[in-house]
Amino acid sequence: MTALQKIEADREQRLPQPYLLFLGDTTEPGYAKTAFGLRDWANDKCVGEFACPEATVATGLPRLDPGEAKAKGARSLVIGVANSGGLISESWVPYLVEALEAGLDIVSGMHARLADVPALKATAERLHRRLIDVRRPPSDIPVASGRKRSGKRLLTVGTDCALGKKYSALSIAQAFLRRGLNADFRATGQTGIMIAGSGIPMDAVVADFAAGAAEMLSPDAAPDHWDVIEGQGSLFHPAYAGVSLALLHGSQPDVIVVCDEAHRTKTLGNPGYALPTIEETIELNLRLGGRTNPAIRCGGVSLNTASLTPEEADDLIAAEADRLGLPVADPLRGGAVFERLLDNCLA
Amino acid sequence: MTALQKIEADREQRLPQPYLLFLGDTTEPGYAKTAFGLRDWANDKCVGEFACPEATVATGLPRLDPGEAKAKGARSLVIGVANSGGLISESWVPYLVEALEAGLDIVSGMHARLADVPALKATAERLHRRLIDVRRPPSDIPVASGRKRSGKRLLTVGTDCALGKKYSALSIAQAFLRRGLNADFRATGQTGIMIAGSGIPMDAVVADFAAGAAEMLSPDAAPDHWDVIEGQGSLFHPAYAGVSLALLHGSQPDVIVVCDEAHRTKTLGNPGYALPTIEETIELNLRLGGRTNPAIRCGGVSLNTASLTPEEADDLIAAEADRLGLPVADPLRGGAVFERLLDNCLA
Repeated sequence: MTALQKIEADREQRLPQPYLLFLGDTTEPGYAKTAFGLRDWANDKCVGEFACPEATVATGLPRLDPGEAKAKGARSLVIGVANSGGLISESWVPYLVEALEAGLDIVSGMHARLADVPALKATAERLHRRLIDVRRPPSDIPVASGRKRSGKRLLTVGTDCALGKKYSALSIAQAFLRRGLNADFRATGQTGIMIAGSGIPMDAVVADFAAGAAEMLSPDAAPDHWDVIEGQGSLFHPAYAGVSLALLHGSQPDVIVVCDEAHRTKTLGNPGYALPTIEETIELNLRLGGRTNPAIRCGGVSLNTASLTPEEADDLIAAEADRLGLPVADPLRGGAVFERLLDNCLA
Repeated sequence: MTALQKIEADREQRLPQPYLLFLGDTTEPGYAKTAFGLRDWANDKCVGEFACPEATVATGLPRLDPGEAKAKGARSLVIGVANSGGLISESWVPYLVEALEAGLDIVSGMHARLADVPALKATAERLHRRLIDVRRPPSDIPVASGRKRSGKRLLTVGTDCALGKKYSALSIAQAFLRRGLNADFRATGQTGIMIAGSGIPMDAVVADFAAGAAEMLSPDAAPDHWDVIEGQGSLFHPAYAGVSLALLHGSQPDVIVVCDEAHRTKTLGNPGYALPTIEETIELNLRLGGRTNPAIRCGGVSLNTASLTPEEADDLIAAEADRLGLPVADPLRGGAVFERLLDNCLA
């Protein structure tokens, strides 16, 4: 068993499915992206949702209390929301205790540790339930070696955070499997890990080992095997560029797909920072990625057009493909343009 | 008191000086760089050295056992050597226990924690001695904001690891002070922190907060104040480039000084990776650093010529200055060329 297989085995064992999705007291859909990600990509592993009475966000899944969810087969409650500090809100605690008492384990992707909340720790110990922090990286990550690994790799990169790198990688991995290819989605963030059941939370790795974590995540594989790796941040982001560069170097991608969102012009949360152009993003990723894989190339552009009508999206995608001379598609809309993007990635 | 002042106050309190330097069982001078750094830059804070009988490395300081060092005023033993895993060797433990029993605290810059060694923990607890791990970052580092800070900043960057970024920054900070400027050396690694008595160990910060740590390390200051920041790694290093980019973004340097070593052609520990040229290193650092400080410029090149004769060094420095059209100097040799480099940094 390789080191990564061991991690995966551990984590799969540690993620008891199916899930009940917890939405806390959230009124801002942007903070519920873990719940939405699980609904969209692991729907068969979600029995329903549960929330504080104040919450206005909903996933559309059946609303169940923990006892009902347990009766429908749920094995754990997943905290499906985040706040900017990654904290476990005091107001959530009674609901989490209720879940433990109903017989569910708790799975969290927050920076804060579940066991650091005294009421959760005490209840879990009393009832022999598990408190599972997904954002805890393995303890035996080596410093990156820079050694070229076998197999093929695709990494989604972005002009910014939170614009579709995870959904793009999931869509591409799914499409590769549909085409009969040998492929794995490799998760690098907490939501991706909950969806895939394995992965490494890149943002929680100590900086010196970040590229080593990326190497560990996509180990040597058969020559025709594809790892489709979830990107993080952006090389242009004033807070997260270091994580993006470590992931790019350690992933050694053969192909990058550049993710952008229609009409976004400012860096999220840092409006003083203009978004780079798609061309700059391609050029800088190829240049820096070429350090560990000189054969790196751009397979195309994944354009998040969620805010547009289908007609607007089609028009923009066609115009961008024309302007850039590259395949452009919105993977969530699919269609012939997405197939062309896949063809070019595999060419 | 700002967050950083608080850290500094804490750490100064936590670093009991003067030191006894411990060399372990080291036979390879390259592994003793912490001891050499303290001898060279904090000589007045070092009473002597101590080692296992097998050690062949020496600092030239008086050889004292812990009891003798204590009698000469030493307050702590500093582990002055490193091995590749950052581990506390089993064979050192009896000597470290002897130091605790003689009345010294222990200061370590290793990744491993002193208190995880049972004999050290037990002895320290019994005798009320302190076990101080310098490579532990503060717990309240924020995500970087990218906000421009007041004051001036100089960052040493490199073509590789371990070729003089710390010594260059120390030399430049010392020279700025000699010129009557208002300046601080800002340490980013364990040896620098032991020398300066404060700083943040960049390589131990969780990746998501690395740029935030760099922002915290050099806070807003008077318009004429210079922070001279110790660089880490290299943007071209397959393992550490992410740390270097986070430090570059968070430091927002007005001036970079590019550090290189005469005749080094391969990346240390990664011989498959050719060293970038000085020109490439300047260009990439200016380009990426320009994201958070568009006014960034290169002040010149610090060339480590330790392996050359004085005449060879002078010739190479002159030739490189001519070729690059920039001031080039070896700060440890000083001279008129170093003064020109300083002039250009301050221009």
